[in-house]
Amino acid sequence: MTDIKLPQFSDIREAHIRIKQFIHRTPVLSSGQLDKIFGARLLFKCENFQKTGAFKFRGAINAVMQLSDNEISRGVVTHSSGNHAAALALAASMRGAKAYIVMPENSPDVKKAAVKGYGAEITYCTPTLIAREEAADKIINEKGATFIHAYDNFNVICGQGTAALEIIDDQPGLDIIITPVGGGGLLGGTAIAVKGSKMGIEVIAGEPKGADDAFRSFHSGEYIPVHTPNTIADGLLTTMTMRTFTIMRKNVDDLVSVNEESIIESMRLIWERMKIIVEPSAAVPLAAIMENPGRFAGKRIGLILSGGNVDLSKLLFYSEKLK
Amino acid sequence: MTDIKLPQFSDIREAHIRIKQFIHRTPVLSSGQLDKIFGARLLFKCENFQKTGAFKFRGAINAVMQLSDNEISRGVVTHSSGNHAAALALAASMRGAKAYIVMPENSPDVKKAAVKGYGAEITYCTPTLIAREEAADKIINEKGATFIHAYDNFNVICGQGTAALEIIDDQPGLDIIITPVGGGGLLGGTAIAVKGSKMGIEVIAGEPKGADDAFRSFHSGEYIPVHTPNTIADGLLTTMTMRTFTIMRKNVDDLVSVNEESIIESMRLIWERMKIIVEPSAAVPLAAIMENPGRFAGKRIGLILSGGNVDLSKLLFYSEKLK
Repeated sequence: MTDIKLPQFSDIREAHIRIKQFIHRTPVLSSGQLDKIFGARLLFKCENFQKTGAFKFRGAINAVMQLSDNEISRGVVTHSSGNHAAALALAASMRGAKAYIVMPENSPDVKKAAVKGYGAEITYCTPTLIAREEAADKIINEKGATFIHAYDNFNVICGQGTAALEIIDDQPGLDIIITPVGGGGLLGGTAIAVKGSKMGIEVIAGEPKGADDAFRSFHSGEYIPVHTPNTIADGLLTTMTMRTFTIMRKNVDDLVSVNEESIIESMRLIWERMKIIVEPSAAVPLAAIMENPGRFAGKRIGLILSGGNVDLSKLLFYSEKLK
Repeated sequence: MTDIKLPQFSDIREAHIRIKQFIHRTPVLSSGQLDKIFGARLLFKCENFQKTGAFKFRGAINAVMQLSDNEISRGVVTHSSGNHAAALALAASMRGAKAYIVMPENSPDVKKAAVKGYGAEITYCTPTLIAREEAADKIINEKGATFIHAYDNFNVICGQGTAALEIIDDQPGLDIIITPVGGGGLLGGTAIAVKGSKMGIEVIAGEPKGADDAFRSFHSGEYIPVHTPNTIADGLLTTMTMRTFTIMRKNVDDLVSVNEESIIESMRLIWERMKIIVEPSAAVPLAAIMENPGRFAGKRIGLILSGGNVDLSKLLFYSEKLK
């Protein structure tokens, strides 16, 4: 545990200087109607408007920009079917390099199309962790490509923390910042950024009850991985690592677990009242407030809207009218 | 026809000065991906982020702010089940006054709730034009309330034109501005604003084929009302009046009609690529470009995204996952 390198506040500030020409400085939006409903001042950091539709691009571009010309010429590789895959694909393309993405063959077509759209090369594998790791190892050995993990990576965590730097800077006087937690990259980067800024802001994470390894690890003080996560928040099915667990223990004030109904209701409120599209994972911070109204009443709260990549084909989308 | 009072450019500029403290100056968003798909520079004026979720608030607040204290004390009335009703309700409440909204009793619950949420008093009637007009007349006679038509109203048209003033100001060098057209209030105000600005910008309107009274009137040169409109673009089911027809003939460069599939596909592209929610009517300008790619290629185009009020209960919204 002692030999895991953990990011410091200065690392996140340096990451921001490094990547800010490549990322969108996303807006912070608010809604008078939502403030009224929740009895708090809610400030939403819109990473759904980030490149590739999620905060993941911050970490991916920060990692890619630190590879040498020699390293990047041999490409980067990851196994992911989600937002990190698209983010790494775009980041690599911005250095004229190749991204190799290992994906289960049963991934949704919309995700395959997104990754291909950013110019990546997909390697399909059977949908098991062993098959994914074997496929990635094969590419590393054959191509000499650099593996960039979705969250268990120092530079990725530093990149994810830059969203918090921006909201702290744009919205002075926050009492609390809430993020969702899956593997702990966004939460870790955010917590280091917030605590390093020394403004007395609390860091709280929301996690679905169906994937509550971080919640149970945090409250027990022991690293407890979860083996069969199940939640609509598909970005949060991942499990923490010792690195992200260690950052969480040192820097996070509290974890709140939320049920599926609150996630869906929160997502719907954001769509309806703010007229923006967020994915289920991004609605988890609002769900945390919804389930604990007394605790958040009257506070000035920053919520990281982590992404907006929803498979719209899962929605009816007026198709009944076409029939 | 000669005694209909038509707004001038100066009226729209005055309206903007009058209302700008009450409205949101909505952002203009763009998407590199959509620009690539359509081969043009597309700049979206986001009236889905306007108060009450649609441009209609501009016209309503401009009309309400010009009533005397005596007039406004007796309230305002309109018959509408759509965005104008909510807009007028909020506008009236901002002067501490009452809005009486006549609505068919079979209106969707979500629309009833929206109007009530802004503090208006709803009068239900049977779903015919005669019943609506009778109910409104009764309120005018009993309460002395002022009738504010959704689009056949000088001050409402002036208010609607202020969105165009803002995008012209924020995005110099536009070649074309495209709006949807229903009753012609937004199109009329936009056309007067654009032509009055004398920057050589073309004004084009998109209209669903299923409600193409404006299209047929424009191209025949005669006012041809439509009697049984049918389109998914529920904000555009209305028919032009002599006033809006006259403004259109004088100021609009062209009308394009679009089919339902293009509207749905355009709406989906906006949701997916821009991560914002727009209603079907708001997708009609992009549908016009989609159906006429050669005509718009290489141009710098402002599109008015007219609103974002979609009944999300019509979407599946992941409910299958909850079962």
